[in-house]
Amino acid sequence: MFSHRSKEYKELHQQTVQRLQKFLETENNVFLSPSSGSGVMEATVRNCVERKMLCCITGEFGKRYAEVGESNGKIVERLEAELGKPITQESLDEKLSSVPDVEAVAITYNETSVGLLNPLPKLAKVVKKHGKLLFVDAVSAMGGVELKVDEWKIDVCFASSQKCFGVPPGLAVANVSEEALERSARAKNKGWYFDFKLYEKYQEKESGTHMTPPIPQILALNKELELIEAEGGKHKRLKFCFKRMQKIKEGVEGLGLSLFPQRGYESPTVACVNAPRGISGPEVYERMRGRGFELAKGYGELKERTFRIGNMGHIRPEDIDEMLRTLGEVLR
Amino acid sequence: MFSHRSKEYKELHQQTVQRLQKFLETENNVFLSPSSGSGVMEATVRNCVERKMLCCITGEFGKRYAEVGESNGKIVERLEAELGKPITQESLDEKLSSVPDVEAVAITYNETSVGLLNPLPKLAKVVKKHGKLLFVDAVSAMGGVELKVDEWKIDVCFASSQKCFGVPPGLAVANVSEEALERSARAKNKGWYFDFKLYEKYQEKESGTHMTPPIPQILALNKELELIEAEGGKHKRLKFCFKRMQKIKEGVEGLGLSLFPQRGYESPTVACVNAPRGISGPEVYERMRGRGFELAKGYGELKERTFRIGNMGHIRPEDIDEMLRTLGEVLR
Repeated sequence: MFSHRSKEYKELHQQTVQRLQKFLETENNVFLSPSSGSGVMEATVRNCVERKMLCCITGEFGKRYAEVGESNGKIVERLEAELGKPITQESLDEKLSSVPDVEAVAITYNETSVGLLNPLPKLAKVVKKHGKLLFVDAVSAMGGVELKVDEWKIDVCFASSQKCFGVPPGLAVANVSEEALERSARAKNKGWYFDFKLYEKYQEKESGTHMTPPIPQILALNKELELIEAEGGKHKRLKFCFKRMQKIKEGVEGLGLSLFPQRGYESPTVACVNAPRGISGPEVYERMRGRGFELAKGYGELKERTFRIGNMGHIRPEDIDEMLRTLGEVLR
Repeated sequence: MFSHRSKEYKELHQQTVQRLQKFLETENNVFLSPSSGSGVMEATVRNCVERKMLCCITGEFGKRYAEVGESNGKIVERLEAELGKPITQESLDEKLSSVPDVEAVAITYNETSVGLLNPLPKLAKVVKKHGKLLFVDAVSAMGGVELKVDEWKIDVCFASSQKCFGVPPGLAVANVSEEALERSARAKNKGWYFDFKLYEKYQEKESGTHMTPPIPQILALNKELELIEAEGGKHKRLKFCFKRMQKIKEGVEGLGLSLFPQRGYESPTVACVNAPRGISGPEVYERMRGRGFELAKGYGELKERTFRIGNMGHIRPEDIDEMLRTLGEVLR
């Protein structure tokens, strides 16, 4: 291990930031945060919302955003979709017309609790038509789904190291737009730890962070980004993930099972599968675990009715074949 | 890597917490925080201070506590000692009599920027005589200096993984007293990420944290605590560190150099050495680095006048001998 004020660290920091900027297609700042993704959720609220925000809710992580907003003393407006359905342009447009005083809109890009992908590029247009800041929880999306930060005009979008990048947990990354930084400069009582202006200052001055960063995870993420480039770049990686999800979907449907979300909005990074008649979701999970496969239980309200199959990080297509074969056996 | 909601993680979490409780001699909660130590600094302010606190300042990290307090909207009273001198019982007693409305007192146990150890057990008595909450920044002390949390009545005391424990950075640990938790229960706008009541809830319910924790660092810390036990326990480890510092001190003085802090208050975990006449601190640092020894530069106001020799983590006594020999050579 080297010190976070050493030349070695500075080089690593710069390289990782530059690779992330390229990966996210942004010329704005990208910060490395010694926290989980939820830490950046809290940062967006404290740096960029003075009084009121809108949270788009399609599951548990959308609810968390609202909880984070309120626990930081902000007024939170909610736009909630029926479980398994996405936020639509129309509903968002209507909601924003009815609450013109919100300063920012928070959207969960990939709602992992229900295996749903919100139509972010379309929703982003609506948010910008209304002139609001846009925060995107991309925790389970970044690295597995397309994300064009500057083209889509995302002010802050964040993810954790341990999801699609397949790196151990302990690090979050986030892009922060100029406008978000301006809001931060004016913000009162925003605290020290998650202060975007301090991130900016130390990045410029020290090629580092204002607190000690989780160096092992940064080393691993930098390596992973290097690997993605060496394999042929982001779009090749996204295509690979997409195909792997096709395999999961077809396999699951071949077993007579269905996915929970509305057709056309299924997440490419996690399949939320309806448990078959007579077996609960947790039971499927336990049977698979007994056979050496770590799927995920359903989340929140869907805990009993579903189980989930992750499509993140380092999974080989052959492992998917074997998992599907085993799933067929345990359900027989 | 395993999931933070898996049985493996829960077992690891419980074991690490129990080992830390034993190490800190406390029956109170000990939480694992996915942040640097400064994250817990922010947590104490947000959970436990409604309006006003007192920060004892003996160097840069004491100043940081005050900055964290103010950036979170609190009124901060300051008790500042002359650089190189500790906070005394008398000055603290007098200060607390003059500002009876502060709710809590923050003390840097080991002020690494000047290589000074504050007389914490004595200061703790004064804080408790005045009935205040006591926060202790033990970032560079825990694991290298005695720390008796319950006997000394410390409400919150925190450290980072990468200092005396010698584990990679990315994890902070903190004990939190019942009274600190009661204050947290009443606190408004304390946020989500650093909410002590959420740490408590998830620790009880899930043997985990409300966000994803930095699992590699927790594995390493648990292992380190196991090693300390296997070697003969905490006091044996502290004695070993103390002797190693004796060796550093004697060696440095043998070279005609002196330590910066007032005699009797020198830190056992970092020696802050006055640079010799004609050579700046950074120059000593660079010469040693050129010879393969990573010392530390002076910090803040002392940057030019001092350099620092760390006595934390995994350093063999033979390495100290070699470092001292080399130091003699580069200063010749």
